[in-house]
Amino acid sequence: MENALIIESPQNPRVKAAVKLRKSNVRRQTGETLVEGYREILRASDSGWRFKELYCCPELYLDLEADKLVSKIRSSGVTVYLCSETAFRKMSYRDTSDGLMALSPLVGKKLDELKLPDNPLLLIAEDLEKPGNLGTILRTADATGVDAVIACDHKTDINNPNVIRASIGTLFFMPVAEASTEETLLWLKKRGIQSLAAVPGATQEYTDIDMKNGTAIIVGAEDEGLSQTWIEGADHKASIPMLGRNDSLNVSTAAAILLYEAVRQRRKTP
Amino acid sequence: MENALIIESPQNPRVKAAVKLRKSNVRRQTGETLVEGYREILRASDSGWRFKELYCCPELYLDLEADKLVSKIRSSGVTVYLCSETAFRKMSYRDTSDGLMALSPLVGKKLDELKLPDNPLLLIAEDLEKPGNLGTILRTADATGVDAVIACDHKTDINNPNVIRASIGTLFFMPVAEASTEETLLWLKKRGIQSLAAVPGATQEYTDIDMKNGTAIIVGAEDEGLSQTWIEGADHKASIPMLGRNDSLNVSTAAAILLYEAVRQRRKTP
Repeated sequence: MENALIIESPQNPRVKAAVKLRKSNVRRQTGETLVEGYREILRASDSGWRFKELYCCPELYLDLEADKLVSKIRSSGVTVYLCSETAFRKMSYRDTSDGLMALSPLVGKKLDELKLPDNPLLLIAEDLEKPGNLGTILRTADATGVDAVIACDHKTDINNPNVIRASIGTLFFMPVAEASTEETLLWLKKRGIQSLAAVPGATQEYTDIDMKNGTAIIVGAEDEGLSQTWIEGADHKASIPMLGRNDSLNVSTAAAILLYEAVRQRRKTP
Repeated sequence: MENALIIESPQNPRVKAAVKLRKSNVRRQTGETLVEGYREILRASDSGWRFKELYCCPELYLDLEADKLVSKIRSSGVTVYLCSETAFRKMSYRDTSDGLMALSPLVGKKLDELKLPDNPLLLIAEDLEKPGNLGTILRTADATGVDAVIACDHKTDINNPNVIRASIGTLFFMPVAEASTEETLLWLKKRGIQSLAAVPGATQEYTDIDMKNGTAIIVGAEDEGLSQTWIEGADHKASIPMLGRNDSLNVSTAAAILLYEAVRQRRKTP
């Protein structure tokens, strides 16, 4: 690579700054996060996402097109740093790294910035604890044509590098917002979007609810369930039948079941 | 604990043997696996599962009922070993251990040992790579009243401690079998159970298939998809609509969508 800037030492300030971005408060203060991995960076780049800096370590490349992607991002004006393996591994938050990492501005809009079609389908996640679950939900939201995903209450930090990873970069083309539960509930009511809260044990089953009109599906933490605000405020509380001995489903599984029922109803000839 | 046998040193042969059980070939040779965690051990015990030995470390207990569970298992004739924290942590395969681990015979039946009702609902998983996915599928299989889960081709080792964990012990009350793909396909045909292979891009959508009669839903590895044997041999190939930019769903998500469609159809008044 011509004229590349080089990061040799794991003590380099950029390496240290990258390591600090594992903490959500540092991400919030700096307005930055990290995106690691060829597939994730490619998807962001293809969606026109603008990174701040790109770090690469050719010794670790796993994808034959990695060089091409680096050149493309570089030619769009992003500074590229060539890293020693020691420096790169220190920055990396993955078990197996593929030698590509980008410094990125935070992802996420405000509620009022979301542009919605008529009869939107929304997915709202409240206080999920595991980044992997939110990432999987984002993939499913993309697959079901969801118009926006809203993460409530900031426990679910959508800019957590592990969310970005588990979503395989879906975050860069799916409209995503962060807002409080109260704010989101009011916003839905104002827009006339019905809310359907997934509540284990609710008497109404999810298949009995008409989701053809504008609908927001709300799922919560696996252990704690949804907050009282949603349980009291939602237009519908719906359960998923549990026919066995377990009393709960994985939250991303529950979200998929509800979203695909909405798709089924919406695609069915009336 | 009266007269408890004590494991003090991390060099104790039982500790070394437990560590070796992380390898699937050792599990197969010895016919043993490990079950870690209060919830998992409780569920197995409640289902009448018979452990070989129980290892405990009261310093690490997280559950107030842990002592009660240990006494119960002990009084059923299982030898209990009291472990030092160092010894226990060496055996543990979890990030956060709760001080309970059991040595268990392997889980899993042969196909012909499965007892099925009329019109069974089966889930077949082929060559899944991530233990967490198979564990989540087991939870969903329980929730949807699946009559048996069949793991094909042994890449998916159902006795992997991380499968047991991700299933939260569902493995101990859900009938599970291991068999080759060819054997399973023949077994289904002989019993007149229709097979529905989840194949991305298949022209038929899953909601167009009648799953009220005996049905086996087959899902495969995320990256590779199902083997040709299933693609050519299954009665139906069905796709799940993908309305976004991603071309695949997480395999446990796909399994849940298909299984809950079977539940919906079967519960619907005819």
